[in-house]
Amino acid sequence: MKTLKIAVAGLGTVGAGLVKLLSDNAEIIALRAGRRIEVVAVSARDRSRDRGVAIPASVAWYDDAAKMADEAECDVVVEVIGGSDGIARQVVENAIAKGRHVVTANKALLAHHGAALARAAEDKGVLLAFEAAVAGGIPIIKALKEGLAGNVISQVTGILNGTCNYILTTMRETGRDFADVLGEAQALGYAEADPSFDIDGIDAAHKLSILTSLAFGTPVDFASVHVEGIRHVSADDIRFADLLGYRIKLLGIARMTDHGIEQRVHPCMVPVKTPIATVDGVFNAVVAEGNFVGRSIYEGRGAGAGPTASAVAGDIIDIARGSRVPAFGVPAAALKAQGVASIDRRVGAYYMRLSVVDRPGVLAEVAATLRDEGVSVEQMIQPARSPADSVPMVMTLHDTEEAAMNRAVARISALDAVLEQPRIIRIEAL
Amino acid sequence: MKTLKIAVAGLGTVGAGLVKLLSDNAEIIALRAGRRIEVVAVSARDRSRDRGVAIPASVAWYDDAAKMADEAECDVVVEVIGGSDGIARQVVENAIAKGRHVVTANKALLAHHGAALARAAEDKGVLLAFEAAVAGGIPIIKALKEGLAGNVISQVTGILNGTCNYILTTMRETGRDFADVLGEAQALGYAEADPSFDIDGIDAAHKLSILTSLAFGTPVDFASVHVEGIRHVSADDIRFADLLGYRIKLLGIARMTDHGIEQRVHPCMVPVKTPIATVDGVFNAVVAEGNFVGRSIYEGRGAGAGPTASAVAGDIIDIARGSRVPAFGVPAAALKAQGVASIDRRVGAYYMRLSVVDRPGVLAEVAATLRDEGVSVEQMIQPARSPADSVPMVMTLHDTEEAAMNRAVARISALDAVLEQPRIIRIEAL
Repeated sequence: MKTLKIAVAGLGTVGAGLVKLLSDNAEIIALRAGRRIEVVAVSARDRSRDRGVAIPASVAWYDDAAKMADEAECDVVVEVIGGSDGIARQVVENAIAKGRHVVTANKALLAHHGAALARAAEDKGVLLAFEAAVAGGIPIIKALKEGLAGNVISQVTGILNGTCNYILTTMRETGRDFADVLGEAQALGYAEADPSFDIDGIDAAHKLSILTSLAFGTPVDFASVHVEGIRHVSADDIRFADLLGYRIKLLGIARMTDHGIEQRVHPCMVPVKTPIATVDGVFNAVVAEGNFVGRSIYEGRGAGAGPTASAVAGDIIDIARGSRVPAFGVPAAALKAQGVASIDRRVGAYYMRLSVVDRPGVLAEVAATLRDEGVSVEQMIQPARSPADSVPMVMTLHDTEEAAMNRAVARISALDAVLEQPRIIRIEAL
Repeated sequence: MKTLKIAVAGLGTVGAGLVKLLSDNAEIIALRAGRRIEVVAVSARDRSRDRGVAIPASVAWYDDAAKMADEAECDVVVEVIGGSDGIARQVVENAIAKGRHVVTANKALLAHHGAALARAAEDKGVLLAFEAAVAGGIPIIKALKEGLAGNVISQVTGILNGTCNYILTTMRETGRDFADVLGEAQALGYAEADPSFDIDGIDAAHKLSILTSLAFGTPVDFASVHVEGIRHVSADDIRFADLLGYRIKLLGIARMTDHGIEQRVHPCMVPVKTPIATVDGVFNAVVAEGNFVGRSIYEGRGAGAGPTASAVAGDIIDIARGSRVPAFGVPAAALKAQGVASIDRRVGAYYMRLSVVDRPGVLAEVAATLRDEGVSVEQMIQPARSPADSVPMVMTLHDTEEAAMNRAVARISALDAVLEQPRIIRIEAL
């Protein structure tokens, strides 16, 4: 069969990793794909930079990636530039317009324009593939689109951001503060100079919105994701979680509920015995729940040159083999929006940490407020009295509707004896 | 597109589960597959049995499954009868001969005839798919063949038999003996009346030989798997494992080594902190290691109507979508046998439990024997002296070659003070 010709837009860590993979593993890939796969064009600003990989002289260089997508003699354009708009979007749109398949690792692009791009690709009869956009090397996109395709999916949950998981893991292992660990992660290259995309949960929300679309057959709806990051998770919270038998993880949760689809990203306490609780460091994990398969769990490295290149290569091999699976698992025209379930409808347990004046009667006030809102206490930790002016008061609360919890928290925070805004972390049983 | 017509050979738990799945989830499957999927023929001995699922009157019944595979007007034959030869094999061969795609859950058949059947299917231009044959609902076959296809795989390891994992988990949780827990598992239907296929490791070895072929591009070579079951794992071993920080799991391990491919199934001690250590009960898990993706881990239910039907349905949907991936990931003619690495070459740590006479000097004798064979002790547990005639002596041994370990064990078992055959369990770091 004819060689499959690839153009790579972006020669950063991932792009260079892909070129290396396609070269190192060329023989086995040709055998598996049924044809040779060859990089024929690349685009990057600086041609002289050492990328740790040799670009053969026969490869066409383009300064302008969009132009390459438009003009290069290729079957597939790989977009590993990133960003929801600008050049990355232009590359993908140009490639599709010219009838070339697209493989991308770009979650932001898909979160914002996924449904439209899927439609455009379908109209042109080309594939839009993006295994690398979610959970790095773990083939979770393929699992949802193909392996589990016989199931009605009810829920997908995941640790989708390696930076956050690394920070939370390190905070727990060292007892250090968020700001301190973030600084170290930045120094080590695990977090960006501007870390907000990661630590404010936006990156995880991008990925979650893609999983949601695949799981439920809906157009990607990033705007409906409820997003909270990990900035407010304190060393105290992590310590108390340990005492209570939980781990704190930033989870993305997508659920089909009676009120529509719930999509949320926020720090969660998960029981230490659930498999996802021990997924540490830069690892990602996804839990999918189907009506016949039950629960299945996928773990692996969520980022980095190797895992991401592996995912891109898997998509390229699918194309070489003649795959015809639509971008989101069903024809783009069949993607059907569903109602959005507000997070106010969430029913579940909660962790609450208060900072209170150390005097008699405070617990009674707090307890009365919770009772008035129908919130009942499961466990409480009040450390021994201290010479300080304030003491922490920590409790876990039985299953409650979020709206009731919010009312209780508003009233509790208004109590004179409560010194700071209460810290709430949702408990997810999984 | 034209409806895809299915004939189901075998209406036991899995066959009935598949019919139910294809009916319950028909709408979403049609959307995902791009066409309707319809069961047009079934074969089972007893037509009147209540299987908890309605078989429409339009479905053709066959008493003889092989005849159905030969004659029924269908595109795909699903074989869920089981057994490495006999009727199951006849069904698959007839279906292929008639140019029908085959989906099977039959690991024994594939372990014994996988390479030949793959060749026959390819010659006829039909697919042979078997996601359900390994690890139930976990799409691990697809992950190895497609998702991770860009990688050179160096190792695949798994908890591949739910019955054994259930027994080992229950032994640990209750402190009860193997025989006792096996009896209970049989009563609960988790173990067969003749449990030997499961507990002697044969079922896990069937599955491992399939994973090996996929991982390394070799013809299935069941005969080369070193197989030990769990009959000899005692309540004592499980208790000592706990004390030493390990869990005992029956693992299947396939590794590319300098001496060829190593395939082995046997009880292992795995450090309690490795993700696979906490995969309990009837769950299965597979760990795959690729040269770019690194380590990825897959967990889920390993058996039962729902998970197995989910896997079969995934394969059917692939066929409906026009997949052309070869049975073992590369063309059958390209499957290439590699050398076989003997387990004698294994280098790793060991657990050893002795039953010794309670008198001074025994430890010195054992230690001297180990030293003479170049085996060094890492940890030792000798419980307080007891009034009994014998006491257990437990030690873990640093990385040693299996052949040296065997020599040491032979000499130790010949010592007068050693009362029973030493119990050895390999420690796998994973």
